[in-house]
Amino acid sequence: MQALWLEDKQLSLKNDIPIPKPLVGEALIKVRLAGICATDLELVKGYYPFCGVLGHEFVGEVVQAPERSELIGKRVVGEINIACGQCQECIQGIPTHCENRPVLGIVKWNGAFAEYLVLPVKNLYTVPEMIPDEVAVFTEPLAAALEIQEQVKINPTDRVLIIGAGRLGQLIAQTLRLTGCDLMVVTQHEKQRVFLEKMHIPTISTEQVPVKRMDIVVDASGNNKGFSLACKAVRPRGKLVLKSTYMGETQVDLSRLVVDEVTLVGSRCGPFGPALRLFEKGLVDPLPLIDASYPLVNGLAAFDHAARPGVLKVLLRPSGEVDRI
Amino acid sequence: MQALWLEDKQLSLKNDIPIPKPLVGEALIKVRLAGICATDLELVKGYYPFCGVLGHEFVGEVVQAPERSELIGKRVVGEINIACGQCQECIQGIPTHCENRPVLGIVKWNGAFAEYLVLPVKNLYTVPEMIPDEVAVFTEPLAAALEIQEQVKINPTDRVLIIGAGRLGQLIAQTLRLTGCDLMVVTQHEKQRVFLEKMHIPTISTEQVPVKRMDIVVDASGNNKGFSLACKAVRPRGKLVLKSTYMGETQVDLSRLVVDEVTLVGSRCGPFGPALRLFEKGLVDPLPLIDASYPLVNGLAAFDHAARPGVLKVLLRPSGEVDRI
Repeated sequence: MQALWLEDKQLSLKNDIPIPKPLVGEALIKVRLAGICATDLELVKGYYPFCGVLGHEFVGEVVQAPERSELIGKRVVGEINIACGQCQECIQGIPTHCENRPVLGIVKWNGAFAEYLVLPVKNLYTVPEMIPDEVAVFTEPLAAALEIQEQVKINPTDRVLIIGAGRLGQLIAQTLRLTGCDLMVVTQHEKQRVFLEKMHIPTISTEQVPVKRMDIVVDASGNNKGFSLACKAVRPRGKLVLKSTYMGETQVDLSRLVVDEVTLVGSRCGPFGPALRLFEKGLVDPLPLIDASYPLVNGLAAFDHAARPGVLKVLLRPSGEVDRI
Repeated sequence: MQALWLEDKQLSLKNDIPIPKPLVGEALIKVRLAGICATDLELVKGYYPFCGVLGHEFVGEVVQAPERSELIGKRVVGEINIACGQCQECIQGIPTHCENRPVLGIVKWNGAFAEYLVLPVKNLYTVPEMIPDEVAVFTEPLAAALEIQEQVKINPTDRVLIIGAGRLGQLIAQTLRLTGCDLMVVTQHEKQRVFLEKMHIPTISTEQVPVKRMDIVVDASGNNKGFSLACKAVRPRGKLVLKSTYMGETQVDLSRLVVDEVTLVGSRCGPFGPALRLFEKGLVDPLPLIDASYPLVNGLAAFDHAARPGVLKVLLRPSGEVDRI
């Protein structure tokens, strides 16, 4: 099958990747649509030494499922952490932190920028009919946005600042907007600003960030300048949620965190069920975030496009046919 | 009066400091006993550019209190943050984070290494009779230890690690021991280890720190090596409480915090009432932590003593008499 293959920081289009074979408990999924995310761009830069098929945001159709034939033909999205079910974290009920987990398209598991992928059946969520592919493909990043509210209580009276209005920042803004909180977003690109203001979410520039005034700050900037800005904005006893993963270490004044009793909360993957419910109710609309859609065969051009400043979501359409299995 | 004066990182004994005059709402307190803490040692190193009388841990006797004469003769300890009562933080009920606050012996307010000090009456707590001066002088640091439990829920089943068994680490260990949690302390000095093991608190060396296993880690090490160790020990979704203030910035792998969804909690001053209640009930015993007690006139020698590795609490006894006013 065709796939985008990452090896030694080199991304290439391959046509000879074998179609994966699902084991018992797994399903073979024909990818209908996949999304490029900041983590994919970081992986190409070498954030984590992954070798394999890239991609973890997708919507697809189940084409094989040993002993679970009722799933065949279902349209699904999939939780990306493949939990062992046996380690301490799995037993304690936090399978997204499984010690032995491969991660779809990130750690030791071939991903979604391909015609087919395999995932455990327990990772799959059926997509309600009224949610089109172009919306369903955002389920994974919307779940990551909702993880913030799994971890941090956000009061309707809280002053909340999001640093960064990129792919993830936009979805976070759309979810936090639903809490009724006093929300502002730091934007750097006109297009990002326009999207937010259409939803009546106020935007400010980096220069307008208030000093030590925000109850909650979410850093979705993807760089350590955003982190510095977040530290500046958070009030004493406030919370700073970290949503970005990127290479390298950051200089942090830990004594400032102690003196102002700031809480830093690392936040990663989130719950798929609530994400699908918000799409179903039309409460989050990711469609304006789609900048382009490329066939998989033009995947390298799609990556160049996704890496341009200010670009939001770029989608990939694999071209494989079911009857090619 | 006599006092230990800090100016340009130089500590000196002065005999000509005027006795402070209490305004309405304030009290003049004759210092009976004061304690040297790690923050005092950091201030001498230049952690914060304070100029004035050092010292913020004390027990004393009220000798003047305009319009509050019933306080005269009372033995008191005092909350060190002098809140304005009018800024946003004060109005929101977090006066320890007052934007305009001077801090006793730390920021713009003369401290406790002197014969007399002044504090607002609202900062004072009367010391129950059965608590001797040598115990009461530990109220401020015990309150700081209890701040951890004001901020973080500690379950009796939690695995908790304290990094550092110095002045503050020992008090934190004594408070966390009361929760019934599965507690261990990383020690570097034999004497610190012996104190803890007498209270049936297990100790380990830095080499024995388990990797990603602890539910809660408290860094009371006072240096950034301790922070690295704390990062190593905390489990995914665990909490890392920061108790140390020191000069300079620390290199932090923020992506590790995101991927493992670790929460970092900065923690500073705490509640005096609960600290006095624990002393009253004999549930915390600070007396073994006293390494030495010096008259104020030998304050510089006391500071040299307190700065030696492994030394715990060094106390200062001002010699002024009430009738000298």
